[in-house]
Amino acid sequence: MSIKEEVFQLAKITHEAAADSARISMSLKTSILNDVAAKIKSHKENLQKENLKDVQSAKSVGLSEAMIDRLTLSDKVIAQTVEGLQEIAAFPDPVGEITGMWVRPNGMRVGKMRIPLGVVGIIYESRPNVTADAAALCLKAGNAVILRGGSEAYNSNLAIVNIFKETLKESGVNPNVLNLMPTTDREAITHLLKLEDFIDLIIPRGGEELIRFVSQNSRIPVIKHYKGVCHLYVDEFADQEMAVKIALNAKAQRPGVCNSLETMLVHEAIASEFLPRVSAEFNKAGVELRGCQAGKAIVEWMVPATEEDWFAEYLDLILAVKIVKDMDEAITHIARYGSLHTEAIVTKDYAASQRFLREVNSSTVIVNASTRMSDGYVFGLGAEIGISTTKIHAYGPMGVKDLTTTKFIVLGDGQIRE
Amino acid sequence: MSIKEEVFQLAKITHEAAADSARISMSLKTSILNDVAAKIKSHKENLQKENLKDVQSAKSVGLSEAMIDRLTLSDKVIAQTVEGLQEIAAFPDPVGEITGMWVRPNGMRVGKMRIPLGVVGIIYESRPNVTADAAALCLKAGNAVILRGGSEAYNSNLAIVNIFKETLKESGVNPNVLNLMPTTDREAITHLLKLEDFIDLIIPRGGEELIRFVSQNSRIPVIKHYKGVCHLYVDEFADQEMAVKIALNAKAQRPGVCNSLETMLVHEAIASEFLPRVSAEFNKAGVELRGCQAGKAIVEWMVPATEEDWFAEYLDLILAVKIVKDMDEAITHIARYGSLHTEAIVTKDYAASQRFLREVNSSTVIVNASTRMSDGYVFGLGAEIGISTTKIHAYGPMGVKDLTTTKFIVLGDGQIRE
Repeated sequence: MSIKEEVFQLAKITHEAAADSARISMSLKTSILNDVAAKIKSHKENLQKENLKDVQSAKSVGLSEAMIDRLTLSDKVIAQTVEGLQEIAAFPDPVGEITGMWVRPNGMRVGKMRIPLGVVGIIYESRPNVTADAAALCLKAGNAVILRGGSEAYNSNLAIVNIFKETLKESGVNPNVLNLMPTTDREAITHLLKLEDFIDLIIPRGGEELIRFVSQNSRIPVIKHYKGVCHLYVDEFADQEMAVKIALNAKAQRPGVCNSLETMLVHEAIASEFLPRVSAEFNKAGVELRGCQAGKAIVEWMVPATEEDWFAEYLDLILAVKIVKDMDEAITHIARYGSLHTEAIVTKDYAASQRFLREVNSSTVIVNASTRMSDGYVFGLGAEIGISTTKIHAYGPMGVKDLTTTKFIVLGDGQIRE
Repeated sequence: MSIKEEVFQLAKITHEAAADSARISMSLKTSILNDVAAKIKSHKENLQKENLKDVQSAKSVGLSEAMIDRLTLSDKVIAQTVEGLQEIAAFPDPVGEITGMWVRPNGMRVGKMRIPLGVVGIIYESRPNVTADAAALCLKAGNAVILRGGSEAYNSNLAIVNIFKETLKESGVNPNVLNLMPTTDREAITHLLKLEDFIDLIIPRGGEELIRFVSQNSRIPVIKHYKGVCHLYVDEFADQEMAVKIALNAKAQRPGVCNSLETMLVHEAIASEFLPRVSAEFNKAGVELRGCQAGKAIVEWMVPATEEDWFAEYLDLILAVKIVKDMDEAITHIARYGSLHTEAIVTKDYAASQRFLREVNSSTVIVNASTRMSDGYVFGLGAEIGISTTKIHAYGPMGVKDLTTTKFIVLGDGQIRE
């Protein structure tokens, strides 16, 4: 069988299973997800053994430390995955929810009912814990799902998918509601993206190059984010101690992820006091600062920033720093160089906080907290299926409800059109 | 200037105006839309004069009666347009609405705030009243908009857009928040569809061929519906008098529109009583019936239906009729031949009504009312910008809220990621 035919058959059986997936009762979904969580916990050693194969080959081909960090199923990552699954299991089931109902002058009642999307395809790289999150969220929303993880995590992904399939079978559910692409060949993705009759939505997660590739080759709707060039604006009326803590956390707590900080904008009125203070902490944390000219005049060890630095998603211990005249300049800078991911302000001023919330239209806008908080799990969505910087359908961290749609329902008693 | 350059410039100035559009205050938006409504009313004769030019050339090139019906700005259509604009004006402004806010264990408040999409492109055919509805809905949602109407309605569309632009100018708003494509050349659409940096969403309205063309050539997200193959299922426990009225209305009240009925499914237990009764009425109304074999055994003047009839969107006084064994067969038939637009059941049975609502996943599912009720205006959305049969972002009649998205907002007091 050719790769094209193999992918076609996989998509076809998954599409056929979507009706089964939509019909799993609320209580059975909950118990399946709890069973999977329990099995991931009890099969931890086996999972880590499979994961070690992936980590070792990643090391042997010289993948970056950030990549290996994403790939590793550490005890902590597994514990978070289990907790995430249990949280999704305990979450209200979105399917069938009536999200509103109103009466029209002719007595007809019109409402909206939440239904699954159908088949969701997730194309991702590195992190094998995405496999569990994505599968659980899609199943909770009543969808069937096709997963295509990165080649570097194939053993880990397969081990996780097998736990799901085993549990589905034990629960009397068609295990084809969840399928892992049998090959990590990129050609296979190209074929998958043409099957708009079988797949309703594609969510790519990973590097910019992968996402552009998916986006340009897909006939299926794609929800994506290219990159996270997140900003922190330290306002004239900031609590500077809080601003230091937030800046440090946003940049250095885990620099390799998309919600880490890439550019800090500082109001000129506090720059001469705040910059020396925060830069001393960044220096201790091993963060390289790339500053504008005015900033370098205050903290001279900063590397001079170039135009490219304002666009950069470093994903590393590097931070661009710019002094701005006022909030107008901050908002304009964010609109010009930002990626619509996450922006934060630190301020004690009410009007400044409200204006920033209103006028910055990135997918997540934060007052007085770290950009690292921009995450489906932290926001209480259970686990996130991705972060959308496309405004259509979902914008920001996507949880289980974003994997459904609503249909209109009408309850009449003989109404006709005049 | 080449067409490509002209389209590029138009999209660029509209994109630049999007920030102005997002900033128009709620009360100013309301008064602009009410002013436009008043002007359309007072300029009715001038509008109809412009419209007559279009209608006359349509007649001279021999367009079908259904097309001319869609093109004509009759007194009734203008009155509906005015009413639609006033209803949209009076509608709650969606922008800035907080659609939910919750507290996380760390004390951080997380919410969602509704914001405009940015620039919306509407590509449509025939009906010039779409121009007013589309412009009003896009502006109410805080978007800038590019309209591309059909060449057959160019004079009517231009007259309506000029009323908007004049009102915007009088209100001190940048009139570039609304632009009509200066040419109806199809090449211009191709260029427009590549400008994903300037346009956030494309909504095509019109024939299947236009929609496929847009869909296949767009790099911008597209919300579409190809056709409306709407079904009425007359259940075993139907109120037959109601079923006759609904069937007649759904098929014959205005056959040229997408929510008109194309296939009627009748439960076999009542077929011998119901079919003669309803067919007599259809006969009087001049509707040709194309029936399955079992149906023809009851009403012999029906034309024999072929496999293509079950897929057909006639948009004419023709109806496919099929007798089904039970609701299973009806649901399976709809899933196989339907277009995800609108399906209705007539029944007095509670369980049958609930099952139909739950298991039919078309974008509108109706109990005991005509498929012709499936319409944004009838549903109370003000006016509809289109009907989506794509499950992503919006599904079914789309109103003003569907032209917005939501961003996450976070109110913290120093929270960082552990």
